[in-house]
Amino acid sequence: MNNRKLRGGMIGGGIGAFIGPVHRMAAIMDGEAEFVAGCFSSNPEKSRKSGEALYLDPTRVYSDWKEMILAESAQPAESRLDFISIVTPTASHYAIAKMVLEAGFNIICDKPMTLTLKEAKSLRDMVKKSGKIFALTHNYTGYPMVKEARVMVSEEKLGKINKIVVEYPQGWLASLLTGKAADLGIWRMDPKQAGASCCIADIGIHAENLARYITGLEVDSLCADLLGFIPGNKLDDDGSVLLRYKGGAKGILYASQISTGEENGLNIRVYGSKAGICWNQENPNYLFYTPLNGPTQKLSRGNSYNSQIAKDFTRIPFGHPEGFIEAFANLYLEAFKAIRALAGKKKVKVDVPTVEDGIMGLRFIETVLKSHKSSKKWTKLLS
Amino acid sequence: MNNRKLRGGMIGGGIGAFIGPVHRMAAIMDGEAEFVAGCFSSNPEKSRKSGEALYLDPTRVYSDWKEMILAESAQPAESRLDFISIVTPTASHYAIAKMVLEAGFNIICDKPMTLTLKEAKSLRDMVKKSGKIFALTHNYTGYPMVKEARVMVSEEKLGKINKIVVEYPQGWLASLLTGKAADLGIWRMDPKQAGASCCIADIGIHAENLARYITGLEVDSLCADLLGFIPGNKLDDDGSVLLRYKGGAKGILYASQISTGEENGLNIRVYGSKAGICWNQENPNYLFYTPLNGPTQKLSRGNSYNSQIAKDFTRIPFGHPEGFIEAFANLYLEAFKAIRALAGKKKVKVDVPTVEDGIMGLRFIETVLKSHKSSKKWTKLLS
Amino acid sequence: MNNRKLRGGMIGGGIGAFIGPVHRMAAIMDGEAEFVAGCFSSNPEKSRKSGEALYLDPTRVYSDWKEMILAESAQPAESRLDFISIVTPTASHYAIAKMVLEAGFNIICDKPMTLTLKEAKSLRDMVKKSGKIFALTHNYTGYPMVKEARVMVSEEKLGKINKIVVEYPQGWLASLLTGKAADLGIWRMDPKQAGASCCIADIGIHAENLARYITGLEVDSLCADLLGFIPGNKLDDDGSVLLRYKGGAKGILYASQISTGEENGLNIRVYGSKAGICWNQENPNYLFYTPLNGPTQKLSRGNSYNSQIAKDFTRIPFGHPEGFIEAFANLYLEAFKAIRALAGKKKVKVDVPTVEDGIMGLRFIETVLKSHKSSKKWTKLLS
Amino acid sequence: MNNRKLRGGMIGGGIGAFIGPVHRMAAIMDGEAEFVAGCFSSNPEKSRKSGEALYLDPTRVYSDWKEMILAESAQPAESRLDFISIVTPTASHYAIAKMVLEAGFNIICDKPMTLTLKEAKSLRDMVKKSGKIFALTHNYTGYPMVKEARVMVSEEKLGKINKIVVEYPQGWLASLLTGKAADLGIWRMDPKQAGASCCIADIGIHAENLARYITGLEVDSLCADLLGFIPGNKLDDDGSVLLRYKGGAKGILYASQISTGEENGLNIRVYGSKAGICWNQENPNYLFYTPLNGPTQKLSRGNSYNSQIAKDFTRIPFGHPEGFIEAFANLYLEAFKAIRALAGKKKVKVDVPTVEDGIMGLRFIETVLKSHKSSKKWTKLLS
Repeated sequence: MNNRKLRGGMIGGGIGAFIGPVHRMAAIMDGEAEFVAGCFSSNPEKSRKSGEALYLDPTRVYSDWKEMILAESAQPAESRLDFISIVTPTASHYAIAKMVLEAGFNIICDKPMTLTLKEAKSLRDMVKKSGKIFALTHNYTGYPMVKEARVMVSEEKLGKINKIVVEYPQGWLASLLTGKAADLGIWRMDPKQAGASCCIADIGIHAENLARYITGLEVDSLCADLLGFIPGNKLDDDGSVLLRYKGGAKGILYASQISTGEENGLNIRVYGSKAGICWNQENPNYLFYTPLNGPTQKLSRGNSYNSQIAKDFTRIPFGHPEGFIEAFANLYLEAFKAIRALAGKKKVKVDVPTVEDGIMGLRFIETVLKSHKSSKKWTKLLS
Repeated sequence: MNNRKLRGGMIGGGIGAFIGPVHRMAAIMDGEAEFVAGCFSSNPEKSRKSGEALYLDPTRVYSDWKEMILAESAQPAESRLDFISIVTPTASHYAIAKMVLEAGFNIICDKPMTLTLKEAKSLRDMVKKSGKIFALTHNYTGYPMVKEARVMVSEEKLGKINKIVVEYPQGWLASLLTGKAADLGIWRMDPKQAGASCCIADIGIHAENLARYITGLEVDSLCADLLGFIPGNKLDDDGSVLLRYKGGAKGILYASQISTGEENGLNIRVYGSKAGICWNQENPNYLFYTPLNGPTQKLSRGNSYNSQIAKDFTRIPFGHPEGFIEAFANLYLEAFKAIRALAGKKKVKVDVPTVEDGIMGLRFIETVLKSHKSSKKWTKLLS
Repeated sequence: MNNRKLRGGMIGGGIGAFIGPVHRMAAIMDGEAEFVAGCFSSNPEKSRKSGEALYLDPTRVYSDWKEMILAESAQPAESRLDFISIVTPTASHYAIAKMVLEAGFNIICDKPMTLTLKEAKSLRDMVKKSGKIFALTHNYTGYPMVKEARVMVSEEKLGKINKIVVEYPQGWLASLLTGKAADLGIWRMDPKQAGASCCIADIGIHAENLARYITGLEVDSLCADLLGFIPGNKLDDDGSVLLRYKGGAKGILYASQISTGEENGLNIRVYGSKAGICWNQENPNYLFYTPLNGPTQKLSRGNSYNSQIAKDFTRIPFGHPEGFIEAFANLYLEAFKAIRALAGKKKVKVDVPTVEDGIMGLRFIETVLKSHKSSKKWTKLLS
Repeated sequence: MNNRKLRGGMIGGGIGAFIGPVHRMAAIMDGEAEFVAGCFSSNPEKSRKSGEALYLDPTRVYSDWKEMILAESAQPAESRLDFISIVTPTASHYAIAKMVLEAGFNIICDKPMTLTLKEAKSLRDMVKKSGKIFALTHNYTGYPMVKEARVMVSEEKLGKINKIVVEYPQGWLASLLTGKAADLGIWRMDPKQAGASCCIADIGIHAENLARYITGLEVDSLCADLLGFIPGNKLDDDGSVLLRYKGGAKGILYASQISTGEENGLNIRVYGSKAGICWNQENPNYLFYTPLNGPTQKLSRGNSYNSQIAKDFTRIPFGHPEGFIEAFANLYLEAFKAIRALAGKKKVKVDVPTVEDGIMGLRFIETVLKSHKSSKKWTKLLS
């Protein structure tokens, strides 16, 4: 396997999808893998056309994911898939992942991992049992300057962390505020496909994950106020959450899909006794660091003063901006490293979200929902 | 009075103070007033030196505010004060204001207005009875682009407001996080001088006031989580508050004095069904406005496209930045207009915070404290 | 004089003017001076109304500056002016300054100092002979972070300076690009009032002055390309200049009044062997400093890490923005210090532009014009 | 060819190179091509290792580019290369391109195209004769918001263009300012490999190209002042150029490799009679547009209000930043479209720099050098 590109399959992500193409670009851009099979849609014509656009062998393009897993399981070693990327709406993740694991493939899975915490725990058991690689695309942790922030916290450059403010404002659903949402077929607003939450499950968990990745702190309890502002929306499209972290830090998490004018404004500020830091996804090559009583420093990706970890995940020199796809690709690179190591029966330490992060995501979602439903009371993080 | 500058007195604000000098510069910079008397400190030497630095007649410089009010009451019409600025620590506001009103002077008072809501209501009655002008320096509403924001909301350019995020992070107390605060003599951390709150009373109410000034929305209920992170601090130095506004909007208010690296970061974002806006005090000449599905517009002070109100509070052309003092001076200008109108027995509509804003500030402070103390529960705004 | 405010007179700056009111606010905001006399316009009604708006004694309001100087010369010591501010169009500066000096008053004069280099040199001789204070309002040098930049250069934090890029783009005349300028009565475009240059004389010299103030470097030779893009404009409204500084540094100076969309974008970048710095007038409380191979630091006014000089010119804490008027006022404060010292026969070192800076401004203007007219050739700085 | 990925070869770009890996990522990330052969270095071991890291068939990895072209020419149709990317130092471009064209392959070539204008013209003749695709990687024109700017100019949203300020400051060579450059083996400073210019040839031509791409304006004459500030540098590492464009616009071009603290700060401002625009490569997803007398608009990639052309070159939604590699990849996509069309004997209009842009680059370089050497005189653009 070490003298060839890895072979990937994809379930979901047909023409017109957002995240499927991102997975494909991220997986192949570094020359480490290529996609050779896929079930891009349950609509045969759409799946066929998607496969064609990817120059795939038509015999390895499917419109039924079960059929795909069966057929691909029968491929000989020299053409057998090394991993399958799952990029369908959330509702099907669990069933697909289960069958993929049983067939013995490694998985790269989009978030949220499953519909429920119960499913998440069950999936964890399956992953453990399978011994396979399971990577979850909490992609924002792939940005080099997010990794830099994590290093700075771990090296105690911030001192004791007191306050975390993490926000994920979007406005892409705001045009529905004065219209009818029910008709629009946005799967994230459909409980059958998205589960019990729209906004928190889609982006709130990215915010929680980002804060935890950088600070290492785990939520102790929270108080959540959600709302579906969009007429006809059965789920939340906006949420405000107060947080208390284990160890005493306080937090605010704000996620929204109806914050008119916002694009994809994930950002985080962490305040410690010795310094504060600030990072914003829309201008991701920079991390702002202000030591106590000193000037703010604009730490820039690609510089000699960066940590080794940030350097390891950097492709091009300072001033040449890397973006969303490169950060996403960093997750794939780590997953590939793990997959190659597993095949070679070697141990390797990789920096990629796992099934445990998926469980934490569902714990967060369900705790937020529980708090909200119980009169927005303070609620302990579900275990 | 209309052919001369107004004559002002000041109580508090001696050498080394922060807000006293700001009041002085704000009051005189437009050539509408001059200070001619003052009790700058209860320390006679300090007050004398302060008066000297201001080139005051030594006979009108005092070290006992009661004495000052008595003496100034006795001045003849041609040298009698037109207003007195109260810039002492909060605890003395009520008693000073009471005596000043009884002596028949107009008042410009720093915030918070009083120590308690009870005092605030009592002061309101006194102001009403006196018929005098009482202006409260919620100075951030003096910025032209804040006024522009208010106009835009009132003209429904934002549509229905759904979400308000208002923040006031400071870090100036962060250096105490690892030390002993009790020894430092910072009056805002002393319950005797500052009352039951440090952070919320000092800056949290600015944030509440700013949001209310721009949107016209009043808090319905709130859930607050406060903390004094500084060792030995008996009061709050950080607070996170979830808000529900009357009419259905949701809000987040974050105020902090220990957010390391922050300077004076008051900022607000308001999201409506038709547009979102964003303003930041540290770069105050600009208001960012994003209509639904359109590009963000950087509205800049001093332009022909500004509203008349923003223009009325503008001194110099676009690109020539106005700052904190000019905004503060806008409040004084409005107070002076009211004072001159009162003297001339004319009616005039002015845009300056009043005793009612002072009451709202205390209602907010006491509701936040009540929520926090009752296990951080959701709490109706105290009436 | 030390136990009272200074008394000022003003020539020019009537209602509707831009720079006159700025001088007034700048002069009085710190409580060091007051205006008590003025000739605000040659139109008696306009001058009268201007004086009235300033609450001046009508007997000290004039519409003929010669008359004013004569009358004010006759005032007794207890009401005699300490300084006169000259804020008329350039053409009259020389004659006014001459008579003011002869009458024995100190001068604060707007830039450019005179119409021609010849006048400038003659004025220098008169100033010298008079022994009076002559301050020239190259106001941008009043910003604390500009002073910080100067300190950094002088302390060799930048190493050897190699490159200076200084720009002053404005767009306020761009609306004339498609119209007729001749009709508009803008005095800066009228050779009789503004002299041989519009753009370079109005703002180009600010750029030259700023670069020289910060770096201490003097232009050796230059190559200028000017244009009046506005139909009917007899003078330049845009200019590009390449510079060679004594000592080997290279420079670019760009000044424009037709750069559509620009407001008052004076900015400078200085690149040395050890660091680069960058400052922008529209956000003037910050200086960006990037040491070789290190992150960019955002130096912010009002911090403990600022130089003593920057601190000395700072009124309010970090995060509370100071603006254009405060910077202007810093020049007046220095001029006042010099005036008080002169009266007290003391020596004092002040940081305020002098008649020498005025001469340098005219040397620059005339060299630029000479280069431009001689086929835009490289031209030695006129002596 | 339309049912498979294109097959590419690469000459240059071995391990440790900067631009080679960029070409590889850009070429493969969209799934349109893969590299199957390469001569990555004249050092056999280095080339072998580079090929191995790319999982290439070792028989198609070479250390002599002539040998590679010969061997690859002999490949049968089913494995024959569709294009060869040339990413060597400039000096060898001409000879390599000549032989590649003669062997009948399409070319993607890095800039500057050749060492001299003479070579450039000769290469143009060869390209024409060959009928092959020749794409030149002036990659900055691949950014969607640069294309948006070009559309806006062509739709006359800026009116008549009066002024262009284009800058390309870098500081990566500044650490050599106090050292010895000659020893460092930086090929761009070696006349044998880089030709007669370092800074202008490397980055100055990007600035010229960007300005021309956006505005369509061609330089008429220029005045250039170059310098090699680095001790021992025989070539320029900094240049300032005044420009006059055909049609009357004026320009400033500034390119530098010793502007300490700058990273890769290519930026452009274009001022017209109706609007001004501004774009900065380090934050490339935004284009700032200020119509006359209106607020600045921050046009953001991925929005419904973008032009169709900007949309066509966009992969992911607004707020998800695309970067340098994606922009580079846009050039490859266009080149691939042309290559597929050529193979299918179809006509297609593509937006990719050609051999003509290469000639213009060399005309610019040689004119700048001519001006500089002739006492920095104004010089007509060489034809």
